[in-house]
Amino acid sequence: MAAQQTLLYERVAKLVETQIATGALRADDRIPSVRSMSRTARVSVSTVVQAYVHLENLGLIEARPQSGFYVKRAERALAPQPRPKITRSRRPVSVAAEVLDTCREALSRNDIVPLNGAFASPTFYPNRRLNNLIREVLRDRPLHACELITPPGDAELRRQVAKRMASAGAPTDPNHVVITSGTMDAITLTLQTLCQPGDTVLVESPTYFGLLQVIEYLRLKVVEVPNHPGSGIDADAIRTLVRSTRIAAAVLMPNFNNPTGALTPDDAKREIVAALTAYDVPIIEDDIYGDLHYGTSRPVSMRAFDEAGLVISCGSVSKTIALSYRIGWAVTPQFHADITRAKFYSSIAAPTLQQVVLARYYASGGYDRYLRRVRSMVATNAQNFMDAIARHFPSGTRIAQPAGGLVVWVELPRNVDGTDLFRTALASRIGVAPGMVFSAKADYRHYIRLSCGLPWSPTLERAIEKLGRLISGMSRAVAA
Amino acid sequence: MAAQQTLLYERVAKLVETQIATGALRADDRIPSVRSMSRTARVSVSTVVQAYVHLENLGLIEARPQSGFYVKRAERALAPQPRPKITRSRRPVSVAAEVLDTCREALSRNDIVPLNGAFASPTFYPNRRLNNLIREVLRDRPLHACELITPPGDAELRRQVAKRMASAGAPTDPNHVVITSGTMDAITLTLQTLCQPGDTVLVESPTYFGLLQVIEYLRLKVVEVPNHPGSGIDADAIRTLVRSTRIAAAVLMPNFNNPTGALTPDDAKREIVAALTAYDVPIIEDDIYGDLHYGTSRPVSMRAFDEAGLVISCGSVSKTIALSYRIGWAVTPQFHADITRAKFYSSIAAPTLQQVVLARYYASGGYDRYLRRVRSMVATNAQNFMDAIARHFPSGTRIAQPAGGLVVWVELPRNVDGTDLFRTALASRIGVAPGMVFSAKADYRHYIRLSCGLPWSPTLERAIEKLGRLISGMSRAVAA
Repeated sequence: MAAQQTLLYERVAKLVETQIATGALRADDRIPSVRSMSRTARVSVSTVVQAYVHLENLGLIEARPQSGFYVKRAERALAPQPRPKITRSRRPVSVAAEVLDTCREALSRNDIVPLNGAFASPTFYPNRRLNNLIREVLRDRPLHACELITPPGDAELRRQVAKRMASAGAPTDPNHVVITSGTMDAITLTLQTLCQPGDTVLVESPTYFGLLQVIEYLRLKVVEVPNHPGSGIDADAIRTLVRSTRIAAAVLMPNFNNPTGALTPDDAKREIVAALTAYDVPIIEDDIYGDLHYGTSRPVSMRAFDEAGLVISCGSVSKTIALSYRIGWAVTPQFHADITRAKFYSSIAAPTLQQVVLARYYASGGYDRYLRRVRSMVATNAQNFMDAIARHFPSGTRIAQPAGGLVVWVELPRNVDGTDLFRTALASRIGVAPGMVFSAKADYRHYIRLSCGLPWSPTLERAIEKLGRLISGMSRAVAA
Repeated sequence: MAAQQTLLYERVAKLVETQIATGALRADDRIPSVRSMSRTARVSVSTVVQAYVHLENLGLIEARPQSGFYVKRAERALAPQPRPKITRSRRPVSVAAEVLDTCREALSRNDIVPLNGAFASPTFYPNRRLNNLIREVLRDRPLHACELITPPGDAELRRQVAKRMASAGAPTDPNHVVITSGTMDAITLTLQTLCQPGDTVLVESPTYFGLLQVIEYLRLKVVEVPNHPGSGIDADAIRTLVRSTRIAAAVLMPNFNNPTGALTPDDAKREIVAALTAYDVPIIEDDIYGDLHYGTSRPVSMRAFDEAGLVISCGSVSKTIALSYRIGWAVTPQFHADITRAKFYSSIAAPTLQQVVLARYYASGGYDRYLRRVRSMVATNAQNFMDAIARHFPSGTRIAQPAGGLVVWVELPRNVDGTDLFRTALASRIGVAPGMVFSAKADYRHYIRLSCGLPWSPTLERAIEKLGRLISGMSRAVAA
């Protein structure tokens, strides 16, 4: 009996100790009352008291009169405990996974010059107006947190998205719009709906690294056709490929490829749609950057050339209005019912507040005026970046001139490894995206992608200068 | 030349006409200016003018001085145009899909007595406090819309979730928590991470219909073990099954099965974890209802019995705090890295505003006090529902006594089809969930699930009475 009693109080003490060690309970947090712990741990009140006294003796907690037990503020910093290494993965983790994890983590760091993302500066976005619309919704619809808007999503937001599609040359029935949690959600849901595991998906090379990861996550295979900086997707390559290879779907970024910033011309778009339609291949268009053209007119969606209804156009507000709202859409007359179901079953709905706020934002007008300002700022910034790169990067560097979007794609001297630069730059608190993650075959090892979404400043000039020095140093070290 | 000119202006006119016909442009909406349309449609200004004059002549638009062209308010309602039927699905659509679609659509209807959902009444939820926290975040973090919180998610929210896990008998390191867009997102991401297509997933019968749909969506197979109303998951059935069948993962609701409301006792939980662990089968615990116990203490998570780290516990705020925030989590020491990646690649992140607001909500205290009130209301309501069903439903009706959660599971007389009742009731503006959707084999044809989350009222009494009459009528009609 005595032995068991000891075990019981130790178990309770351990429970609290673990929470303190992991940070789930922090200094000055109140720990559960003796009675509540007794219920939770299914032990007697006296056992809990015994455990708490034990923890007090260890200096981990303290009783405060009339109030209960609290986690004690450590008088000196405890040596960090080694964390148990029980992380297990069902998949092999390659070097790329480690690079990709570091890329992802760097996106949330605020101690670096963030040239690693593909976002514009917060100062560009209509934050004040959106926040006022949130306040308005809190007044009008105080119960919004209980009001689920199931897929296909808020009717007014779908109408607004359909209206925007017209300016992309592809007028749309609001009933063909499905609201999702961002562009990648739209693409993931569509791929999972259209493809069977083991199927092959056509993508550009280079392309957004997250797309390649989703294709792997969905157990699909990938085949690449070139995206040429300056001229966009290679329509001839698609025409040739589709004759010899069975393709389940294509995911393409004709309007400002990420990372090259290339715009695929209308003629090529038409040819691509025709070539893929001939083989009944659905085309998922990632049009996330379409509104961010540096030229005078918005490029058209591939849906403008889509007679068979095989183009599913995906987009979001992430690059233009509100990155962290996590709202996007898929537009498709043919597959909207399946995608609506897929959205509901996999994650029920997009959040109500953001759906309603964005519908009001678009409906209240001024988006086009706002966009014109943003586009002119980003285009100017892109030029500043290219000029600074030309000034500071060593000879052998080449820059792809972007036609829109938020990034510049830089080819370094051949003997410089972009991933090494990524790591070295991060150590100097400068974020860049390494080229190798933008292709399934880890090509582009001597490339990097830089954000051009930040307003030009001496800090950026210094960061580009520093990158130039790092590149020159790495180039010389290899050459030596 | 003349022929082509005609075609061009007709194309532009058609573009606007389509938008009006589909409702993308509505009465009094401004249509694009002549210049902007000229850019978009790549035609001359005079062609656009010709098109707009044509539309004016048709009575579809009107010019307003100094302002531009607007969609004209129809003087008489136009006959509805038949909508083109080009919806195409890559998958066979069974009868169940139609029932499920109607179920989903009914969730957003506000013209019915909503006994079809599994939500509590909006009046139960802490709306005012959450809205005040939103206002607070708008003041503190006015740029929140630009601040992406990448997976695993907001550190403070993860700490709060970890802290809550302790009250479920499973203290957790905040680093093992991954924030997702609700429970189903957590389960979908975990299944996709752990299973290969064609793998078999163990579930209860009956179980939440959305889970069965997700399993199909992920191209997985399903094997069912009984959940007994009153006693929960059949541990013996799992022990037997796991010996003969290769199972890739189990998804279980030990804490208040949806739809039966059954609680699986601790001993059975321990046995289930042991039986599945012996065959290295990961267990995805759907703990969404765990906080809504009618008894005095919160039931423990299966992680409390998990020595091998194979239990992934999933939950959310959807049933307890804010349905439409779309925030949930997966808690797992072993697979958190893979699930973190899966979340990032498939949909980047959960929205920042809701993550931050919920972290503050939990941290500011009072959640337990609030929960006690909600639980007592829901338990009372459940009793009211059961009493009313006993009063109004015909003999042969049986009710599973729920131990927690938001629904009651009702067995109707054997000759009554629950799906027929679902349709008939909906025509009478009463929502119910038909039993057949809660199993992969479309069992439970004479069952329905009713929400017991609404405060008792004469309206509900009348709805139950009406359902009773419908059931009696259907029963007699079949018997006749």
